[in-house]
Amino acid sequence: MLYADIAFVHVLQEIIEILGTLAFAISGIRHAAAKHYDWFGGFVCGIAVAIGGGTLRDVMLGVTPFWMTSPLYIVCTLLAQTIVIVFSRSLKKLDNAWLAFDTLGLALFTIAGIQKTLSCGHPFWVAITMGCITGVAGGIIRDMLLNKTPVIFQKEIYAMASIAGGLLYWLMMESGVNVAVTVVFTFLMIVVIRFMAIKYHISLPVLKGEK
Amino acid sequence: MLYADIAFVHVLQEIIEILGTLAFAISGIRHAAAKHYDWFGGFVCGIAVAIGGGTLRDVMLGVTPFWMTSPLYIVCTLLAQTIVIVFSRSLKKLDNAWLAFDTLGLALFTIAGIQKTLSCGHPFWVAITMGCITGVAGGIIRDMLLNKTPVIFQKEIYAMASIAGGLLYWLMMESGVNVAVTVVFTFLMIVVIRFMAIKYHISLPVLKGEK
Amino acid sequence: MLYADIAFVHVLQEIIEILGTLAFAISGIRHAAAKHYDWFGGFVCGIAVAIGGGTLRDVMLGVTPFWMTSPLYIVCTLLAQTIVIVFSRSLKKLDNAWLAFDTLGLALFTIAGIQKTLSCGHPFWVAITMGCITGVAGGIIRDMLLNKTPVIFQKEIYAMASIAGGLLYWLMMESGVNVAVTVVFTFLMIVVIRFMAIKYHISLPVLKGEK
Repeated sequence: MLYADIAFVHVLQEIIEILGTLAFAISGIRHAAAKHYDWFGGFVCGIAVAIGGGTLRDVMLGVTPFWMTSPLYIVCTLLAQTIVIVFSRSLKKLDNAWLAFDTLGLALFTIAGIQKTLSCGHPFWVAITMGCITGVAGGIIRDMLLNKTPVIFQKEIYAMASIAGGLLYWLMMESGVNVAVTVVFTFLMIVVIRFMAIKYHISLPVLKGEK
Repeated sequence: MLYADIAFVHVLQEIIEILGTLAFAISGIRHAAAKHYDWFGGFVCGIAVAIGGGTLRDVMLGVTPFWMTSPLYIVCTLLAQTIVIVFSRSLKKLDNAWLAFDTLGLALFTIAGIQKTLSCGHPFWVAITMGCITGVAGGIIRDMLLNKTPVIFQKEIYAMASIAGGLLYWLMMESGVNVAVTVVFTFLMIVVIRFMAIKYHISLPVLKGEK
Repeated sequence: MLYADIAFVHVLQEIIEILGTLAFAISGIRHAAAKHYDWFGGFVCGIAVAIGGGTLRDVMLGVTPFWMTSPLYIVCTLLAQTIVIVFSRSLKKLDNAWLAFDTLGLALFTIAGIQKTLSCGHPFWVAITMGCITGVAGGIIRDMLLNKTPVIFQKEIYAMASIAGGLLYWLMMESGVNVAVTVVFTFLMIVVIRFMAIKYHISLPVLKGEK
C-alpha cells in the first residue's frame, strides 16, 4: 500500500517532468519560429529553455549536468519540435494547455533545484537561489539567443513564484514538516501564485530610471 | 615507418588546429570590426569564437578548459587580431581561404569534442552533442556579444554538418572500424557537407510562426 | 603591532569588497532601470555585474563559485536595489562616488582573481586572464541581459587597466617583491589608469571594418 503510493508519486513526478520539459521546449521553439529561425535554431532555443537553468545549476554545483545522464531531455525537445512543425496552426488553440504545463514545469524544476542543492550540502539560501535559477534561467537564455530583452523582466510575476515557493519549502522544513507534505505545498504555492499573476495581471513594480 | 606516419598525422592535426583557431578568431574579430568595436572588443569576440565552444564543453565535462593548458589559443587570437588590423583591406580577397580554414576548424573541433567526451566515459549521444557544441557554440556566443541574432540559425547548413559527422563517427566505431579511418572519413564528411551547403545554398527548413 | 597591521589590511579589504560589490550591483540595477525592467530584472542585472565575472572564473577553475559561500553578495545586491529604488533621484548627484567605488571594485576584483587562480596552481598568463575576467565579465553579461552591445567594447579604457595591473603584478612577483607591496602597487596602477582614461577620454583604437 505504502509502496504503491511511493511508486504512484514517482510516476506522477516523471509525467510532470516530461510535460514540463515539453512545455519549456515548445515555448523556446515557438519563440524561435516567430523569429523565422531554421530547424536547428528552433532546437537550440527549445533545449535552452528545457535544460538551460538546470545545466547552469549543475555546473555551479560541480556535478555532471543532468541532461548528460539521460537522453530523455533531447528526445522531449525533438518531440516538441515535431509537434511545433506538424501542428503549428492547431497549437494556438492549445495555448492554455501549454501555459498550464509551463507552470507545472516551473514548480517541479524549482523543487528539483532546491532538493539537488540541499543534497550537495549547501545552505538553504543557496538552495532557494538555485531553485529559482533552475526554473527561470532557461527562459532568459532563450531570450538572449533570440536577441530580445528577457520577457520575465517585464511581464507578470514568474520568478517570484519560484522564490516564494522556495521560502515556503524552507519554512516548512525548518518547522519539522515531512518532506512529502512540504513538496506538495511548495508545488501548490508556486502554481497558485503563477496562475493568480496571469489571471489578474499582477506584476512587480517597475524600476524608474533614465539614461 | 609507422612512427613517421603517426608523427606526420600529429603534425598535420596541430597545423589544422592552428589554422582552424586562426580562422575562427578572424571571423570573430572581423564581425567585431563591422560593429566598430575597439581592439579589446575585437579580441574578446575573436577568442569567444576560438575557445567558446570547447570551454562550454569542458566546463560541462568537469575538466579544466583546454585553453588554460596552453597559451597557443590566446597567441593565435593575438596573431589573428594583428592580421585583421594590418591587412584589413587585403583580407577581403582571402575570404575563400578563411572560409576553407573555418570549415577545417569545424571538422577538427567536432572530432576533438567527440573524442574528449568519449574519453571521459560518456555515451555516444552525449559525445555527438558535445562535438556539435565544440564546433558551433563559439559562433553563437560571438553573435550574442555582438547583439545580433545568431547567424547559424538562419543561414546555410553548418551545425548539421557537425552532427552528420558525429553520427558517421558513431556508426563506424560501432561497426568496428579503426579509429584513424573513422576520423578521416568523419573529417571528410563534415568538410564535404559544409562545402556543398555553401556552394548550392542548402539550408534547413525555416520554422513557420507568428507572434 | 604587526598583527594590528594585518587586521587593518583585512578590514580595509572587506570594506573595499563591499563598496565594490555595491558599486557593481548599483551599475547593473541603474542600467536595468533605464530599460524599465521590473524589480526582479533589476536584481538579476545587479547581481550579474557583482558576481558574474567571479562565477565564470570559479566555474573554469573548478571550484565552488564564491557567492555560494557567503550571503554577503546577495545581501549587498538587495541593499543596492533598495538604494536605487529609494534614492533614485539623489543617485545622479553621486555619480562620481559610484564611479570611484566601481574603480576600486575593478582593482580589487582583478587582484582577487589573480590570487585565486595562482592559488589553484595555474601559470601567470592564466591568472592575468582570470583577473581580467573577474573584473569585467560581469559588465558584459549585464549588457547581454539588457540586449545592448557591451559598453566596454566601445568606451574608455577599462579592461586594459585590469590587464596592465595583472602584468605589473606578474613582473613584481617575478622580481621577488613582497606580496603586500605588489598588491598595493597593482591596486594603484589599475585605479590610476582607469581615472586617467576617464579624465582624458583615452580609448583603445577602433577596428575598421565593413560588412
